[in-house]
Amino acid sequence: MRIDNQKIKQLNDQALPDHRESFDHLSKVLNKKNIDVNRAVEKLKEFQVAIPSWALGTGGTRFGRFSGGGEPRSLEEKIGDVGLLHQLSQSAGAISLHIPWDIPEDVEAIKSLAASHNLLFDAVNSNTFQDQPDQELSYKFGSLCHVDKAVRQQAIDHNLEVIKYGDALGSKSLTVWLADGSSFPGQLNFKKAFQRTLDSLQQIYAGMPSDWKMFVEYKPYEPNFYSTVIQDWGSSHMLADKLGDRAYSLVDLGHHLPNTNIEQIVATLMMVGKLGGFHFNDSKYGDDDVTVGSLKPYQLFLIFNELVDGMEDPSSNNPYPAWMIDASHNLKDPLEDLLQSLEAIRVAYAQALLVDRKALEEARENNDPTLAQEILQGAYRTDVRPLLAEARLQAEGALDPVAAFRALNVRKELIAARGEKTVSTGL
Amino acid sequence: MRIDNQKIKQLNDQALPDHRESFDHLSKVLNKKNIDVNRAVEKLKEFQVAIPSWALGTGGTRFGRFSGGGEPRSLEEKIGDVGLLHQLSQSAGAISLHIPWDIPEDVEAIKSLAASHNLLFDAVNSNTFQDQPDQELSYKFGSLCHVDKAVRQQAIDHNLEVIKYGDALGSKSLTVWLADGSSFPGQLNFKKAFQRTLDSLQQIYAGMPSDWKMFVEYKPYEPNFYSTVIQDWGSSHMLADKLGDRAYSLVDLGHHLPNTNIEQIVATLMMVGKLGGFHFNDSKYGDDDVTVGSLKPYQLFLIFNELVDGMEDPSSNNPYPAWMIDASHNLKDPLEDLLQSLEAIRVAYAQALLVDRKALEEARENNDPTLAQEILQGAYRTDVRPLLAEARLQAEGALDPVAAFRALNVRKELIAARGEKTVSTGL
Amino acid sequence: MRIDNQKIKQLNDQALPDHRESFDHLSKVLNKKNIDVNRAVEKLKEFQVAIPSWALGTGGTRFGRFSGGGEPRSLEEKIGDVGLLHQLSQSAGAISLHIPWDIPEDVEAIKSLAASHNLLFDAVNSNTFQDQPDQELSYKFGSLCHVDKAVRQQAIDHNLEVIKYGDALGSKSLTVWLADGSSFPGQLNFKKAFQRTLDSLQQIYAGMPSDWKMFVEYKPYEPNFYSTVIQDWGSSHMLADKLGDRAYSLVDLGHHLPNTNIEQIVATLMMVGKLGGFHFNDSKYGDDDVTVGSLKPYQLFLIFNELVDGMEDPSSNNPYPAWMIDASHNLKDPLEDLLQSLEAIRVAYAQALLVDRKALEEARENNDPTLAQEILQGAYRTDVRPLLAEARLQAEGALDPVAAFRALNVRKELIAARGEKTVSTGL
Amino acid sequence: MRIDNQKIKQLNDQALPDHRESFDHLSKVLNKKNIDVNRAVEKLKEFQVAIPSWALGTGGTRFGRFSGGGEPRSLEEKIGDVGLLHQLSQSAGAISLHIPWDIPEDVEAIKSLAASHNLLFDAVNSNTFQDQPDQELSYKFGSLCHVDKAVRQQAIDHNLEVIKYGDALGSKSLTVWLADGSSFPGQLNFKKAFQRTLDSLQQIYAGMPSDWKMFVEYKPYEPNFYSTVIQDWGSSHMLADKLGDRAYSLVDLGHHLPNTNIEQIVATLMMVGKLGGFHFNDSKYGDDDVTVGSLKPYQLFLIFNELVDGMEDPSSNNPYPAWMIDASHNLKDPLEDLLQSLEAIRVAYAQALLVDRKALEEARENNDPTLAQEILQGAYRTDVRPLLAEARLQAEGALDPVAAFRALNVRKELIAARGEKTVSTGL
Repeated sequence: MRIDNQKIKQLNDQALPDHRESFDHLSKVLNKKNIDVNRAVEKLKEFQVAIPSWALGTGGTRFGRFSGGGEPRSLEEKIGDVGLLHQLSQSAGAISLHIPWDIPEDVEAIKSLAASHNLLFDAVNSNTFQDQPDQELSYKFGSLCHVDKAVRQQAIDHNLEVIKYGDALGSKSLTVWLADGSSFPGQLNFKKAFQRTLDSLQQIYAGMPSDWKMFVEYKPYEPNFYSTVIQDWGSSHMLADKLGDRAYSLVDLGHHLPNTNIEQIVATLMMVGKLGGFHFNDSKYGDDDVTVGSLKPYQLFLIFNELVDGMEDPSSNNPYPAWMIDASHNLKDPLEDLLQSLEAIRVAYAQALLVDRKALEEARENNDPTLAQEILQGAYRTDVRPLLAEARLQAEGALDPVAAFRALNVRKELIAARGEKTVSTGL
Repeated sequence: MRIDNQKIKQLNDQALPDHRESFDHLSKVLNKKNIDVNRAVEKLKEFQVAIPSWALGTGGTRFGRFSGGGEPRSLEEKIGDVGLLHQLSQSAGAISLHIPWDIPEDVEAIKSLAASHNLLFDAVNSNTFQDQPDQELSYKFGSLCHVDKAVRQQAIDHNLEVIKYGDALGSKSLTVWLADGSSFPGQLNFKKAFQRTLDSLQQIYAGMPSDWKMFVEYKPYEPNFYSTVIQDWGSSHMLADKLGDRAYSLVDLGHHLPNTNIEQIVATLMMVGKLGGFHFNDSKYGDDDVTVGSLKPYQLFLIFNELVDGMEDPSSNNPYPAWMIDASHNLKDPLEDLLQSLEAIRVAYAQALLVDRKALEEARENNDPTLAQEILQGAYRTDVRPLLAEARLQAEGALDPVAAFRALNVRKELIAARGEKTVSTGL
Repeated sequence: MRIDNQKIKQLNDQALPDHRESFDHLSKVLNKKNIDVNRAVEKLKEFQVAIPSWALGTGGTRFGRFSGGGEPRSLEEKIGDVGLLHQLSQSAGAISLHIPWDIPEDVEAIKSLAASHNLLFDAVNSNTFQDQPDQELSYKFGSLCHVDKAVRQQAIDHNLEVIKYGDALGSKSLTVWLADGSSFPGQLNFKKAFQRTLDSLQQIYAGMPSDWKMFVEYKPYEPNFYSTVIQDWGSSHMLADKLGDRAYSLVDLGHHLPNTNIEQIVATLMMVGKLGGFHFNDSKYGDDDVTVGSLKPYQLFLIFNELVDGMEDPSSNNPYPAWMIDASHNLKDPLEDLLQSLEAIRVAYAQALLVDRKALEEARENNDPTLAQEILQGAYRTDVRPLLAEARLQAEGALDPVAAFRALNVRKELIAARGEKTVSTGL
Repeated sequence: MRIDNQKIKQLNDQALPDHRESFDHLSKVLNKKNIDVNRAVEKLKEFQVAIPSWALGTGGTRFGRFSGGGEPRSLEEKIGDVGLLHQLSQSAGAISLHIPWDIPEDVEAIKSLAASHNLLFDAVNSNTFQDQPDQELSYKFGSLCHVDKAVRQQAIDHNLEVIKYGDALGSKSLTVWLADGSSFPGQLNFKKAFQRTLDSLQQIYAGMPSDWKMFVEYKPYEPNFYSTVIQDWGSSHMLADKLGDRAYSLVDLGHHLPNTNIEQIVATLMMVGKLGGFHFNDSKYGDDDVTVGSLKPYQLFLIFNELVDGMEDPSSNNPYPAWMIDASHNLKDPLEDLLQSLEAIRVAYAQALLVDRKALEEARENNDPTLAQEILQGAYRTDVRPLLAEARLQAEGALDPVAAFRALNVRKELIAARGEKTVSTGL
């Protein structure tokens, strides 16, 4: 389904006077601080975050899964759902596919469908953490790190196939997340596992088109509960460094030990030009994968503060990073959850854009942590929602996407079209 | 299947001379320290740990599940598996059922089968964290804490039904573990949720036979990722205290925040006579549910040090606690994993029995942490395996259960009998 | 020193037009949401946070301490510093004394001095975690829990003396924070230590005037590194419950294990009428004691959301809690740090006041976590600084306290008066 | 003081029959498993751990310090204390100095004194985390990372001076631990701080004699509470990699976030030939610096399992690592504490020597985690104390060092010689 643009416009029109007033007030306040409001709005309009195909259905835990209704039953319907998100938010202009869940049968039709929603195909993702029904060898004890060369070859071949599908659709990068590791001390030879993984990645890297990038994700634990081969950014960076110029580390917010200073990792990787992408979510305990910004919005702001700093640094050779939401939707409507995540990401980005970097550097040069904090919190405490709304308005999205989603009965229509008991592929 | 006792005896006979030599040496060493070796062996023979019915199959994570073969397909086969464990280890003399996974069709036949394996029925467990296919109302947003009275009533009724089944089989206690909580700030009214839970538990408590106990389990997170109604021992104790004399807290090793001093919680609950049971497992990151003792055997010893202290305290009114293994078996053969868990539990228990409590109290009275540590580590560093083997030998179990399980091809026979593709109920 | 009120007024006058404009805009926006802006401003004016006397100097770690200049050298100067904070912020209207650091020599003079700054004497704090030069027995191995009755008696007597000083000054409560615990497994008998602590506290409780309250603080670790006698809210509550109606738990933000849901603890304690006080600070790793709101402002908001809920609950019998900042100032100017902490506390409080509690309860009744989050984040994302500034303006404080502190060269004057090398008592 | 060797021999003689019996039994058991007992004893005799000069006095926390008696008042007395430890344990054959606490006045006399105790000078340690009384510029806001070039130069010069002292005494390596970082978001430019640190280290590296090594230590937090410039092994390795062939990472057990898989880090660094040293201690909550092995002895064993694996790997180009105890002694007698630490280190090392590496690799090749665990735990559960005692006996140390320390009244004699109120330099 697609929403009638006129209906969005009608909703916007009702809210327009209030929006204008708030935006004008904010503009006035920011102008006095010499902040270029139009530039910030333009930046926000440009900022697009990919939606992974598997995030459109209800997720679960090992204890169970409580499905909702109207979940997408096919790749076409997944693209349709991302199209809805993008139509409302004007900030979800890409989809990230997971193979084998999203193998396109008719590539041209799929490309054309995505284009009709103004969607690009972002990084493609391989899956060697599960066994598929028709799979010859099992990944129970690893994939790219497996002791058995035949299993490694199967996993390498799968990744090469993922690249092939991605290439056909116009993707330009491959994200490799490996669950490989061990759940018990002694199970794995750490060094051999690392070297086998490097060797496998080298073969995949060699099979990428010359304009592709590889993103090497890391994670300390889960599904393995004692060790993970690529346990942290240090391991990921070591691999990316050995792989070549087009290999990068990918940071997923939820893939860190308690209390990790993630913004410093982001800064370090950008310093050496090796941050390839960032996966958004939020968490309190582990890789909880809850709505972005629902628990630690200030941490997200601090991360964006480094991302903006890295992107605006003229001396940096870091490529523009790939952005993706990597959250799970166990209790909320997945589309509402994603709209809330998109909003939280943009709030943090907008706040980071308001930071007076020149003044901040001066405070740092003067060893003035009080002032540095005043500067950061001054930006953070600003209510930036009028900027986001203005960016959406200019791009013909909804002033308030979640409210519009509800007012327009989107879920109800999806259920009517797809049924109450659909279950989308995913976790 | 049952193992031919003669085969176990044959294996034991081969290993007997070495065992005798080690046991005699250890006895001599311990006797010099005035430790009563026979008493320790008797204690070990008496110590029995319940096996939960759902732990006999391969577990998984939200990312997938890699099943093994020969998993039990019925309650009868589950009892058979626990029987095998008990036959080999002589320490798994009870089974803990989960309703609705283990509803007995013919109670007398089940009782008779269990008795033929020398198994008792330990605490029964209710399940209100999943929706069953035929269930009228959903537990997606909680069970005993639910805002809707009808859902609460359904969950109460389920618990009462579980008690009914347990009573028929000879169980004497109900374990209530609630996943109830919230995944997002704001979702739940903490106070109302607690009070509704208390109210529901009171109704279940009132429905227990007068010689039954209720065990109230706690857990900080998972499957809910922001809050859990019964998040810690303090909350569990508050509920148990209000429920009545036959309500107790139950401690599960994996249900704690990082770095928690669990042994102190055990001591505190025993001090006030309110420790009802203990669930064994091990973990490095979260509620990983890996093999007992596979990661933190010294912590387990310290916990047993408090448990033994509490059990031997003549002034304590704490009941004898219920013991259960609550681990998951994602990668190992479940039965081998359980045999390793049983061994680790008994190693820790035996070490705790060797602690010279009188000397320890003196060191404490003298504020001598060096000596206190010498005493604890003196016990811990002792190789107690000969004591465990002797206890098993006297009880006609296997000197080395894991080795016997392999030598006797038990899994192979189970697969032959049940098939390669069986999937047991469980997580 | 005291700041000339005219100078504050001059600074305010310069900023007044911008403030008016922002406040008017915000009032308009909030009025449309049926929020009573005047009520919020009044609430903010009433909200006063105590400053502990020891927080006015530079703190340190075990690795060292880098003192600043102009630190208060006497109780009189400490009161003067709090007076400055209150004059600027109009929100620090109380001081919390630590005995033996702050023993008043002339009680009437001290009372009169405090009154001249509009300061009350909040809870008094005992100190049994350090040895004083003239102290007979050592607290190396504990105080109220000590194995030696004479040490316990010394610690009891100290607490009774603290009460005496507090009573003379007009305090109405005693905060007991105990470092008592152990750094090595085996060192302490958990149960005996708890019971001795209870016994000691009972004697102190009995010595309090009949209109006094006792606040029992908890902390999981530091300075002891294995166990702490009062390790968590459950232990604190068990003690408070046994002590009597005027004993309460006190929650210090930094005294929790990683990832603890502190807002739920706050709600639980208020539910049973047993939250006596709250100590503010912030932290990323342990009890870091950094500036309030400098790391997790959303957590602080969620805590205030429960505090406001509890304070506005007509059915609650919880007393109005005691508020105190309990942070350390290793790198920033202590007074600037405290001004930033006061601001962060009031930001969170103001945001919590904006939460539409009726709508929130409805969302909860409807199991609508998306909407519940929208409501909370709607309040949180509001820029509430104009409300805080208005409250200060009405109370004749500074519109921007930190800026005023700097513009008026307060630290420079303090150094001129007291010297560059002063070192205040404290940690 | 020195202990009369005859007295040690007398104590040994009393315990000898029991030792012989236990050692013979263990030898017999191990021989049946084809383990070369003599080789293990030789390895243990060779294994020496450095004692840092500052660990010989009582440590403290920010909350206070409870000194003991008889602490060393000079470098000479510190060497004497390490001599005592070595005499008893025959495993503390090196001392690690901290400048400026241990500046030798007469180098030759100090060398001769150390030689008379059979002590070598291990890595020297610089101190730029504290300000010394006579220091020109402050390290309050960092040292090698400082924004001010003059501060950086002062810190560089200090390190070069430390090298000079170490070179005179025969040390061959410099350990650099930097507290540099920030306590508040915004305070520090992560990238510039890293680059300034690298630049400073390069200058120090250039000033090392050509046969020296540099060890770059890392730590996530404390004393800075938001960020540390060298926060993890990835950062340390990045620096060491850029510095040159003689720069290595140094792993301190306590310098990790909760739940870190440290053994995997050790294996990774050895894989690339970059593990320079290891600092031993133990902890439950943070960098608690308690007695080695007092809390997580199995983790220590798993680390030694990787260390032994790396040291025995013929393809490895990793140098033999530098070992040091880096613990604090707040409650125990420092010398007793160190003797317990030395024992725990050797227990773990001996257990790791017993691991059947060939069988372990086979289990790994067969994806048999059950068997891998049996092999590791088989080694770990062995009571290896007779091996340690035998190694000490052959080297003319004490069979039971802690018991000998007490029986020979060593502390009493130290107090008699040095006084009750001595306070050693250190933390």
